[in-house]
Amino acid sequence: MDKKIEPRRLKGFWELMPEEQILFSEMLSKLEKVFKQNCFVPLDTPVLEYSDVLLAKSGGDVDKEIYRFTKGDTDMCMRYDLTVPLARFVAMHQNELNFPFKRYQIGKVYRGERPQKGRYREFYQCDADIIGDGALSQVADAECISLFEKCFKELGLEVRIEVSNRKILAGYLEEISKTDKSTEIFIVLDKLSKIPLEEIKRELEELGLNSKECENLIKITQKTGKIEEIVENLRNFCKNELFQKGLNEFEELAAHLKAFGTKCVVGNLGIIRGHNYYTGTVFEGFLKDGKDAVGAGGRFENLCGYFSEKNMPGVGMSVGITRLFSILTQNGYFKEKTNEVDISIITFDDTLHAGLELMTRLRESGVKADCLYEAKTFKAKMKEANRRGVNYVLIVGEDEVKEGEYTLKDMQTSQQEKLTFEKLVEKFTKNG
Amino acid sequence: MDKKIEPRRLKGFWELMPEEQILFSEMLSKLEKVFKQNCFVPLDTPVLEYSDVLLAKSGGDVDKEIYRFTKGDTDMCMRYDLTVPLARFVAMHQNELNFPFKRYQIGKVYRGERPQKGRYREFYQCDADIIGDGALSQVADAECISLFEKCFKELGLEVRIEVSNRKILAGYLEEISKTDKSTEIFIVLDKLSKIPLEEIKRELEELGLNSKECENLIKITQKTGKIEEIVENLRNFCKNELFQKGLNEFEELAAHLKAFGTKCVVGNLGIIRGHNYYTGTVFEGFLKDGKDAVGAGGRFENLCGYFSEKNMPGVGMSVGITRLFSILTQNGYFKEKTNEVDISIITFDDTLHAGLELMTRLRESGVKADCLYEAKTFKAKMKEANRRGVNYVLIVGEDEVKEGEYTLKDMQTSQQEKLTFEKLVEKFTKNG
Repeated sequence: MDKKIEPRRLKGFWELMPEEQILFSEMLSKLEKVFKQNCFVPLDTPVLEYSDVLLAKSGGDVDKEIYRFTKGDTDMCMRYDLTVPLARFVAMHQNELNFPFKRYQIGKVYRGERPQKGRYREFYQCDADIIGDGALSQVADAECISLFEKCFKELGLEVRIEVSNRKILAGYLEEISKTDKSTEIFIVLDKLSKIPLEEIKRELEELGLNSKECENLIKITQKTGKIEEIVENLRNFCKNELFQKGLNEFEELAAHLKAFGTKCVVGNLGIIRGHNYYTGTVFEGFLKDGKDAVGAGGRFENLCGYFSEKNMPGVGMSVGITRLFSILTQNGYFKEKTNEVDISIITFDDTLHAGLELMTRLRESGVKADCLYEAKTFKAKMKEANRRGVNYVLIVGEDEVKEGEYTLKDMQTSQQEKLTFEKLVEKFTKNG
Repeated sequence: MDKKIEPRRLKGFWELMPEEQILFSEMLSKLEKVFKQNCFVPLDTPVLEYSDVLLAKSGGDVDKEIYRFTKGDTDMCMRYDLTVPLARFVAMHQNELNFPFKRYQIGKVYRGERPQKGRYREFYQCDADIIGDGALSQVADAECISLFEKCFKELGLEVRIEVSNRKILAGYLEEISKTDKSTEIFIVLDKLSKIPLEEIKRELEELGLNSKECENLIKITQKTGKIEEIVENLRNFCKNELFQKGLNEFEELAAHLKAFGTKCVVGNLGIIRGHNYYTGTVFEGFLKDGKDAVGAGGRFENLCGYFSEKNMPGVGMSVGITRLFSILTQNGYFKEKTNEVDISIITFDDTLHAGLELMTRLRESGVKADCLYEAKTFKAKMKEANRRGVNYVLIVGEDEVKEGEYTLKDMQTSQQEKLTFEKLVEKFTKNG
């Protein structure tokens, strides 16, 4: 082994150091707890799928962002989201699953785009969806939004959830006979918070809308506040059936949300969501003072259209956990260093086994004790404990073993006290 | 959307139905709990790595099992184990990490081998390793074996851990000047439990061992029982230094294991472990009456040899969780169906919101209540609850809402009782 290979990680691939990974894993555990508590079941699909399955939506066209390759005769892709695998799974098992099917999935997805700040080629998605068989009540939309709110509550974060219903805007476009241009118009409106109003107007006019229509459209998207008030305010704005249906759904959603006890939801008809497949409720979540969404979701008409004749409407939510974690790290959300160790144990030549025994008993009682068995001298062991930044050192010498009382040193204050095993457990566990 | 794509999963790729996935996820949670309790930190490396990094061991030769592809100019592979990524990570961060570095990782790995019963192309590995900087005490070997035992204990499984030290056999081979053939000889000995002794002997003779040497070798591998007794028994068997060093390490390990309080460890010098890189302690775990190992581990001389000049010895353990889960499922280990729902709530047109409110409060109190809001009639809702196999149905009618007492129906006995919110929480949570 003469020539060494330089150890490198692929560009654009995320990897955390242990102390960060502990925090990230805790975040995921909290989210999983919320999903389970709300009767969502876990799903864990393969990272690889047949290319024709994964690319069904695009008619087999390969997006250049997708990791695609062949092995033997098999043409396969790495998943770029968790929704297509969900659709594949639901279509395969449509006769075995219970509907509404409520599943969550937290997993890595892959997009070979150019690496840039805050964008990764491998990142986590954290999705929860409710899929109906043929039909799905608006209650499901409310349940998804409530679940989304609970996710942030569990993380101890203040969230603001802005909700709209795409049918309202789509109805107005139908009214002015611009349905064929709706994708382009939605793309323009999606930039409302980013570019000046004049610019939006100019772009809409380029798409063939007259001045009055532009003004009306902008007027609608600027409606924010209590959902019931927005609905009341717009009731007579436009007689179009789809528009009115959107208002009805929006109003119904508000009533359901009340039953779910949500507290952080506001109406905002400026919420568009880029994805073309959203057809009703759409929502985005923002941290206090935050401008970029840290999660979102919405209602889609048919999950499995590419795989099955069955109509399967759904509503989903997604927390952008990779981005959220970056924001929280920058904002100093994680104030306390999470130590993997409560106590470092220092032993001497003839007390090593007594120290290991004590360590084992402490661990079994829920205390994260770790014996510094590698460092050789007392001085080296103390230095090692210091370098690791542990808060407490437990000295297990001959006298201590005889007495059954161990010397606990607070590394911050340098104060020492002698404690029995029971007192140690009391001090370092929640029961204490 | 006329032509439908047939929804298929890639051959040899594992995927569980929700009721199984719940059990599997619980298994993973239990293992994670053990790792954390024992002061191991989590690591989560990318699924993809540079090919030259991942294939450093084989000098860049591509094993046909490996998923390798290029995107743009980048030649990359999907990881086939969690050890090479660990080596890459440790080599990259050798100046930042605390040593001994104790990390665990549970993640999917990829091997494009021919699918066969019990073998998958994507499967989970669950590893924990202790890496030293320059040197690593035998205490680490004991800690790994103890951790391995605790994993099975946490899962409620009886395990038998058979331990050996490879130096003992290697020392004997040195004594008879057969070190150059040791790989081939170990491969033959690894088949001890599978093929008849005569066959083993014949194969060893083909490798140039005389009859006496064969007998001695087989005699060594047949030593099983208490480690201290095996050591005593072999002390005068062979004067070779490596042989004696192996016995010393083995004896030391037994003493450390006692301090860790292990209960399921036995010596068995027939444990070889195929991997060539094990150089000292090796062990395998078996379920009661089980012949196939459900996990294993051992000591290796140098983790990062391909990436770094630094000498980094390590010891690791691995639970074969995908296989273990299959065995447990077949053996009826999971006796009780884990329900994602404790209570299905049935409402009527005018009590939907009261039912949703009650559901929300129950969930917040830790009861997994789920409202059957999709089914339309009472009859359809009862049928749905039946189909889902829930144990309890809670009827929320107008009378119930007025009285604040809800009708709980036991679906097994058909018995009904009226309970307040508080009584429901009491009945369905651990505190009750």
